[in-house]
Amino acid sequence: MDIKRGIIEGNRVALAKLITMAEDGRQEAIDIIRELYGKSGLAYIIGITGPPGVGKSTLTAGLAKMYSDLGKRVGIIACDPTSPYTGGAILGDRIRMQKLFTDPNIFIRSMGSRGHLGGLSMSTRITSRIMDIFGMDYIFIETVGVGQSEVEIADMADTTIMVLAPGLGDDIQAMKAGIMEIGNVFVVNKCDRDGADKTAREIEAMLDFNDKSAWRPKVIKAAAQADEGLDNITNAVGEHEKYIKESDIFMSKRKEHIKEEIMELATNSIMSDIMSRLPKDELNSIVDKTVNGETDPYSAANCILKPLRDRSV
Amino acid sequence: MDIKRGIIEGNRVALAKLITMAEDGRQEAIDIIRELYGKSGLAYIIGITGPPGVGKSTLTAGLAKMYSDLGKRVGIIACDPTSPYTGGAILGDRIRMQKLFTDPNIFIRSMGSRGHLGGLSMSTRITSRIMDIFGMDYIFIETVGVGQSEVEIADMADTTIMVLAPGLGDDIQAMKAGIMEIGNVFVVNKCDRDGADKTAREIEAMLDFNDKSAWRPKVIKAAAQADEGLDNITNAVGEHEKYIKESDIFMSKRKEHIKEEIMELATNSIMSDIMSRLPKDELNSIVDKTVNGETDPYSAANCILKPLRDRSV
Repeated sequence: MDIKRGIIEGNRVALAKLITMAEDGRQEAIDIIRELYGKSGLAYIIGITGPPGVGKSTLTAGLAKMYSDLGKRVGIIACDPTSPYTGGAILGDRIRMQKLFTDPNIFIRSMGSRGHLGGLSMSTRITSRIMDIFGMDYIFIETVGVGQSEVEIADMADTTIMVLAPGLGDDIQAMKAGIMEIGNVFVVNKCDRDGADKTAREIEAMLDFNDKSAWRPKVIKAAAQADEGLDNITNAVGEHEKYIKESDIFMSKRKEHIKEEIMELATNSIMSDIMSRLPKDELNSIVDKTVNGETDPYSAANCILKPLRDRSV
Repeated sequence: MDIKRGIIEGNRVALAKLITMAEDGRQEAIDIIRELYGKSGLAYIIGITGPPGVGKSTLTAGLAKMYSDLGKRVGIIACDPTSPYTGGAILGDRIRMQKLFTDPNIFIRSMGSRGHLGGLSMSTRITSRIMDIFGMDYIFIETVGVGQSEVEIADMADTTIMVLAPGLGDDIQAMKAGIMEIGNVFVVNKCDRDGADKTAREIEAMLDFNDKSAWRPKVIKAAAQADEGLDNITNAVGEHEKYIKESDIFMSKRKEHIKEEIMELATNSIMSDIMSRLPKDELNSIVDKTVNGETDPYSAANCILKPLRDRSV
């Protein structure tokens, strides 16, 4: 099939194929992205993050459905290895998810653990870019928000929703060191459970303590399973979108992301160059020498780079 | 102070300084690591991972204390942003931690979020290498084991302990997609709480399901707060150490790690080269052009690499 034409015509099979090709680093995919790059930049990116078990996927599903019902096109990128999309679903969830998979306005992609150069953040970035080119109005990036790389991925979002649930009191305590700061909208999901008000109060107290920014994050109670509170969340996202677009935050963040994207691509490109110049035996022999203590990793790295540097003096 | 001499003489202040210098990428630190590199390779690396709130830090503290009491030297690298070491402690924990800080056999380093090239995995790798050179017998790397980068970090360990707690049933279900596979020893911590047996059974059932390896992971109940079950854990770690050293796993893993270390160093080195050759204005101008749609990120990356490539043809 003609992938490029498929993308322009809104063909979802073409979209899925282009993402796979791009993840595999195929030149054909890169050429298509380059040619269609001017179509990108219109999608609004929403990060969904929070610890495992708080119902992030159900919430994402509910929000995506809301936007879809309004006629918006929605992409979902699931970076959470514990997400139902990636195989960890309990039955009830899975049925809910299946509805999503058949919605013509919604396209879901789950990120495998492609552990090579660039890794998850690179794959997520490219997938988001392709969905943007494809014409998605909203792109959800769902991550499990407790680790460093997850913070980096969440940082690709224009608005980040931090999802928590009642009974995570200790976690909120523990998480305050840096992680909570990435939330622009806080959702206390499963608010039909005991302790939802307490959790909401704890978040507010923490926000009082951290209050440095002109944007005061919203704290919203929701029960995604029952579709309760979802409209309050989309309203809060809308308010945050308005806020960042009226200030210079939106544009400066976009610039920062593009800079990171360029640097990532440059790094990967130069390392592919180096690897393709280096015979596999030579790399193995350098590794062996380092393991044996005949050389050290810094000298080994220099040794790998030598051919490139010799010629570039 | 003479850092190199300090490291050789076992001075902890020198150790702290060398780690900071290395994280900052200072040539002086690199030279010392290169000169002393032959001293490394003797430390046994133990990964401690698991979701927030299961008591990983308390467990690490207890295990470190046990090894210290046996006269072993122990390094702790805390990569978990929710860890008590990094500021998220509740009071009881903090007192416990303070005992650790004054133990002359134990050295604790918490990893900030150094978000530049290389990132957390790079900092962790270097810190671990320096502690190894310093003469630590055991190095604990504590991560919150639910994200991609955490899996990568845990993978630096010789033995990985996956910590869980009762009442995480749903999480275990959800986590089975890939994340659980990194555990060589499973600990059900807080085993004085209801449901510990159930959690242990669920883990065993999952292990039955996944049983592909010659090493059947141990499942151990513990209550780190009360120092219960810690000896069972160190015994299990010892058995796993014996197993990987008798098979070729230990050596092939070490080789794999050193290969990754070399590649990381080479990548960082070449990117520093490129950045130092590139005037800051030029990078900003390329970013602006990409944001405006005058060019695309792939062409921008090529543009950045052009000076290097032109000279290296």
